Amino acid sequence: METGANLYIGLVHYPVYDKRREIVATAVTNFDLHDMARCARTYGLGGFFVITPLESQVKLVERIVHHWVEGGGFSYNPTRGEPLSLIRVSRTIEEAEEEICRGWNEKVVKVATGASPSPKSIGYAALGRLIEEERRPFFLLFGTGWGLTQAVKESADHILAPIEGKGYNHLSVRSAVAIILDRLLGNRMS
Amino acid sequence: METGANLYIGLVHYPVYDKRREIVATAVTNFDLHDMARCARTYGLGGFFVITPLESQVKLVERIVHHWVEGGGFSYNPTRGEPLSLIRVSRTIEEAEEEICRGWNEKVVKVATGASPSPKSIGYAALGRLIEEERRPFFLLFGTGWGLTQAVKESADHILAPIEGKGYNHLSVRSAVAIILDRLLGNRMS
Repeated sequence: METGANLYIGLVHYPVYDKRREIVATAVTNFDLHDMARCARTYGLGGFFVITPLESQVKLVERIVHHWVEGGGFSYNPTRGEPLSLIRVSRTIEEAEEEICRGWNEKVVKVATGASPSPKSIGYAALGRLIEEERRPFFLLFGTGWGLTQAVKESADHILAPIEGKGYNHLSVRSAVAIILDRLLGNRMS
Repeated sequence: METGANLYIGLVHYPVYDKRREIVATAVTNFDLHDMARCARTYGLGGFFVITPLESQVKLVERIVHHWVEGGGFSYNPTRGEPLSLIRVSRTIEEAEEEICRGWNEKVVKVATGASPSPKSIGYAALGRLIEEERRPFFLLFGTGWGLTQAVKESADHILAPIEGKGYNHLSVRSAVAIILDRLLGNRMS
């Protein structure tokens, strides 16, 4: 099994918190799709799920992917299409989980990420080892807006330790995805 | 000296290559400013230089920073202003270098980054050690568009080894900044 091929990322647009800790659905961002798809391709991931229940957003994602994979974007910059073809759209986290599970015929290990520490969090070295050693799929969930809800975190098998900062941890979700994938799969001492 | 305080990042909009390897000036992107400023703040950097010779772009950066640090954006989301206050705008790489040098009264060590390997490249562990041990400023240069020019790379003191991917290395510059800062300064394997 190629390193990384059993790892999936899920970008959750619902349910997430807004700044008042109310549960909302956020809008899909073009930059998120490109940046995270390029990370997913670079690290050889199994796939990148964009999770949104809103039909308008599902169609937006499909239009963007089509443009770069088969449409005018491909002539302009063919390197962008390849990573975008890793994108799958799901209405819910569970729908994404089921699709991964069907592909592997194995239970999916869900790992929530976020900026807050948790007593039951797993560290990067430990999670990296699990991903490398276990022949089952791992699904890393990232929340947009002000993050994943408490319910989603509690339903996960693991909560990944947050990226520590110098008294500040408001990294964009794009930066967090890049850093976390590199910590888990990158050749960091090169 | 606080870890990271002697490290600066420079986002170069000119001179950089376009896809035909012609030298161009690219436009400043709002997402770049926010994402990279938040990375710079998280890792405790000395500053984040946005390098562009175009007056319209200089004014755009100043407007964006003002909005989030003092304007309407501050009421909406005060966490965005703090990192943006790390931003400095310079017309050229040399102008940025002189400003850093004046602040430290030390020669600036310039490190070019990019996607292509180079025989004289420095690795992450080695550069991380230099940054930690030497009481002088380090200036990491990132190219937009299709990357820094050969002349800029040759004028640098070091060229940082590229981030290795699975036969694909077209990470966005935002992702590259996040990954590289984490490799050099992050609290690894927590």
